[in-house]
Amino acid sequence: GTEPVFILGPCVIESEDFIWDIAEKLGTMAQQHGWRWVFKASYDKANRSAISSYRGLGCEAGCKLLAQIGAKLGVPVTTDVHTVEEAKQAAEHIDLLQIPAFLCRQTDLIVAAGETGRTVNVKKGQFMAPWDVKNIADKLVASGCQNFMFTERGTTFGYNNLVADMRSLYWMRELGYRAVMDATHSVQRPGGLGTATGGDGKLAPVLARAAVATGCDGVFMETHPDPAKAFSDGPNQIPLSQIAEVVETLRKIHGLVRDIS
Amino acid sequence: GTEPVFILGPCVIESEDFIWDIAEKLGTMAQQHGWRWVFKASYDKANRSAISSYRGLGCEAGCKLLAQIGAKLGVPVTTDVHTVEEAKQAAEHIDLLQIPAFLCRQTDLIVAAGETGRTVNVKKGQFMAPWDVKNIADKLVASGCQNFMFTERGTTFGYNNLVADMRSLYWMRELGYRAVMDATHSVQRPGGLGTATGGDGKLAPVLARAAVATGCDGVFMETHPDPAKAFSDGPNQIPLSQIAEVVETLRKIHGLVRDIS
Amino acid sequence: GTEPVFILGPCVIESEDFIWDIAEKLGTMAQQHGWRWVFKASYDKANRSAISSYRGLGCEAGCKLLAQIGAKLGVPVTTDVHTVEEAKQAAEHIDLLQIPAFLCRQTDLIVAAGETGRTVNVKKGQFMAPWDVKNIADKLVASGCQNFMFTERGTTFGYNNLVADMRSLYWMRELGYRAVMDATHSVQRPGGLGTATGGDGKLAPVLARAAVATGCDGVFMETHPDPAKAFSDGPNQIPLSQIAEVVETLRKIHGLVRDIS
Amino acid sequence: GTEPVFILGPCVIESEDFIWDIAEKLGTMAQQHGWRWVFKASYDKANRSAISSYRGLGCEAGCKLLAQIGAKLGVPVTTDVHTVEEAKQAAEHIDLLQIPAFLCRQTDLIVAAGETGRTVNVKKGQFMAPWDVKNIADKLVASGCQNFMFTERGTTFGYNNLVADMRSLYWMRELGYRAVMDATHSVQRPGGLGTATGGDGKLAPVLARAAVATGCDGVFMETHPDPAKAFSDGPNQIPLSQIAEVVETLRKIHGLVRDIS
Repeated sequence: GTEPVFILGPCVIESEDFIWDIAEKLGTMAQQHGWRWVFKASYDKANRSAISSYRGLGCEAGCKLLAQIGAKLGVPVTTDVHTVEEAKQAAEHIDLLQIPAFLCRQTDLIVAAGETGRTVNVKKGQFMAPWDVKNIADKLVASGCQNFMFTERGTTFGYNNLVADMRSLYWMRELGYRAVMDATHSVQRPGGLGTATGGDGKLAPVLARAAVATGCDGVFMETHPDPAKAFSDGPNQIPLSQIAEVVETLRKIHGLVRDIS
Repeated sequence: GTEPVFILGPCVIESEDFIWDIAEKLGTMAQQHGWRWVFKASYDKANRSAISSYRGLGCEAGCKLLAQIGAKLGVPVTTDVHTVEEAKQAAEHIDLLQIPAFLCRQTDLIVAAGETGRTVNVKKGQFMAPWDVKNIADKLVASGCQNFMFTERGTTFGYNNLVADMRSLYWMRELGYRAVMDATHSVQRPGGLGTATGGDGKLAPVLARAAVATGCDGVFMETHPDPAKAFSDGPNQIPLSQIAEVVETLRKIHGLVRDIS
Repeated sequence: GTEPVFILGPCVIESEDFIWDIAEKLGTMAQQHGWRWVFKASYDKANRSAISSYRGLGCEAGCKLLAQIGAKLGVPVTTDVHTVEEAKQAAEHIDLLQIPAFLCRQTDLIVAAGETGRTVNVKKGQFMAPWDVKNIADKLVASGCQNFMFTERGTTFGYNNLVADMRSLYWMRELGYRAVMDATHSVQRPGGLGTATGGDGKLAPVLARAAVATGCDGVFMETHPDPAKAFSDGPNQIPLSQIAEVVETLRKIHGLVRDIS
Repeated sequence: GTEPVFILGPCVIESEDFIWDIAEKLGTMAQQHGWRWVFKASYDKANRSAISSYRGLGCEAGCKLLAQIGAKLGVPVTTDVHTVEEAKQAAEHIDLLQIPAFLCRQTDLIVAAGETGRTVNVKKGQFMAPWDVKNIADKLVASGCQNFMFTERGTTFGYNNLVADMRSLYWMRELGYRAVMDATHSVQRPGGLGTATGGDGKLAPVLARAAVATGCDGVFMETHPDPAKAFSDGPNQIPLSQIAEVVETLRKIHGLVRDIS
């Protein structure tokens, strides 16, 4: 019934200047339009296709920087954690801990995140049925975590392709969980560029609209001032210049379906 | 930019009284709200899972009945044809010829439908990539057909399941074709009930909303006064009592995305 | 426990000379090695991707020619039928009627084939779960057909790809049916060449070996003297010059697993 | 051209007695028949569906125990590692380090395993195309690892199901890599039992035969004296009493296809 949450930011912290600039621009938009939002960026891309790809700033430095941004802009921040140690370290600075899709079945990581007391956002694995998030929820609850959500980011569909099954959002919410749509990763073509993951960024706003009309609690979208020059996942990201329009359309659709979805 | 078209009606003509009753009720709703719509019913269910299942009235009787309904209510009518002979026979009475998904690669049927001069709606096979409808379009154009559309009705997704890939609508429209979403068949669980096809009718309006928000030219939905008693495809159909509300919501979403999708 | 059956021949009758030549060469191999085999060729390719593709000789002429070949070589012949009329017509000349995969749910066609008294080979649809062939079997039995088999030819696996699930052969045989592996169509990449179906013929013998080791009652393989010049499905076919070696390897594997599979 | 390798053992170390008993029994069989084999057991099941499931002995204790078994029986041993620290610790005792499928994209883990100097066996993710193992190979080579292999263990195929694409083995070997078939995990039904992973152990020998006939360098099979009582993955495991017969059949098939696959 309430406003949807928008998790917005670039794929990875490319530099300190870069991340401040994009955060401030998003913050200005959010304030202007009254968005409920979370700022997102990764300090490490731990599962890049190729070993030579850019990885990031590292956990400690990255989380502190995100925390500064959050404090300055008055916005919660989120980042993805990959190990038990990172979960603990990040939780000192980060409001919303994100579990990457490939790692959603790693019990130690789920439990460590759950024990921090932070809200946890688990990306549903590309190999997992929507109803099977219940097992993850049980692990989180057993760890003392009361506040968590699941993010749909597409399911393996043949080779080098994902499909975003809109029923997934419905089924996860029917189980009583909050469900977020990751619109930019759902349009990935994993491995589709040989040594990098391809995708089709112009489809991201399309799937975001579908998800909000389906009924969901939030939308995750990566954005970049110039996606073609992004260090990571460029093909999927939405140009920063288009984000305000995309979000405003999503909010209008959400307003229409709020009471029935 | 215009109003979306709604293709509405029961799965199969269960009896003459039955079909007049449902058509008149839909006609009243359509007139009241100003819908752009087509009345749909099948005279034969040619691919039932089980041999003992109800098949229908037959082509000649069924098409004449539909034409009478169309004339009385002032609405175009559609039905699905399964052979070259049926395509010719149906075209004498029926405005919009529908090609079933399993038959979308049968060249003779496509050509026969194309040659009738009627508008043709081809359901995309559960085994076909969205971009491959181009080959069907070429067959239709070569047959002299200028007016046709494609309908998404889900793609094979493992066993006894379909997934409705919302990108499909985008890709088919990007090729220049009109794309319709079949919301009730996309929620089928083929063979999921052993000797009948299962499904989840409450998901049909959900997928319909997703499709309209994605951007499409129309929505196909089967409806029945009492889905649990339907002769065919009961589990997927939307109760007639809910159709007006479903369609009105879809029209509102369409209005929001009309200029961007 | 017995010898597996090999269904061998080119995709389509390219000409009378062509088909006699290939049949005689296969007949010589079969006699020399003692194969249990059936000669296969199509008189019509009814579901070509593109409308401009070669279709074939037609039903009457094609079936008569196949019957002459069968009589001369003392081998049963098979071809695929697409309509009720073709099923009846073909049954006058053809030993084993094949139902194409796209048409395996068309009740009238199944019943018509079943009523001819001929043995029927139904290719399992790319959209069908292995256990759902039971419904087809029931239709055949209800039509008086006592002799039939099912052929695995791959299941839709994302877009423009099929996967041959070896469990399918096991499951269909567990239901009490004879199961054949179509090794050449299972390596198709449907629509993968834009206006034609691609594939990878060098994988066909590989999947054939896997199927025989899994346990199956026969193997279907299309072969051509020069696959690159085939009128249809060239990329999947096995060069005629390699067929004897491929079949002999399959027979040896079959001999090894005969008593356990 | 050489003998295939068999990676054999129970899913998890249920107790010290349990693991010695099964290892000695396998060792006796291996010696008797002249198998080329590796003994496998896990010290931790890090990605159980449910949080309450049995996890195992832990890394240090488990690896030492496996090393003792290896030394006593004169057989190389393998186990799966989940973190950088475990990779280093296990490498002191273990001959062949296994990377779990869900973790095959985690660069740090791949690099850590590669740097140990041990042979590495990477299970291909259920979300990964066969040709994309090249990126993992590049990470291993860059880490100084010269000896590695990839294991096929099924690809996501709709919900709660995997399919073992036999072409995968061919494609990975065509790239120049050694390919192993994991016959017992490929028959899993992930999440199929609600809070546990289901499967169908009687299909494991069937898929193993298919893989060897396809052409592969080894077969991985979990075995248990009483699968119904196994602490983990019971439904997929092969009864220990049947292993000798299964392996001997596989060796015979391998002998037949050795020179052509």
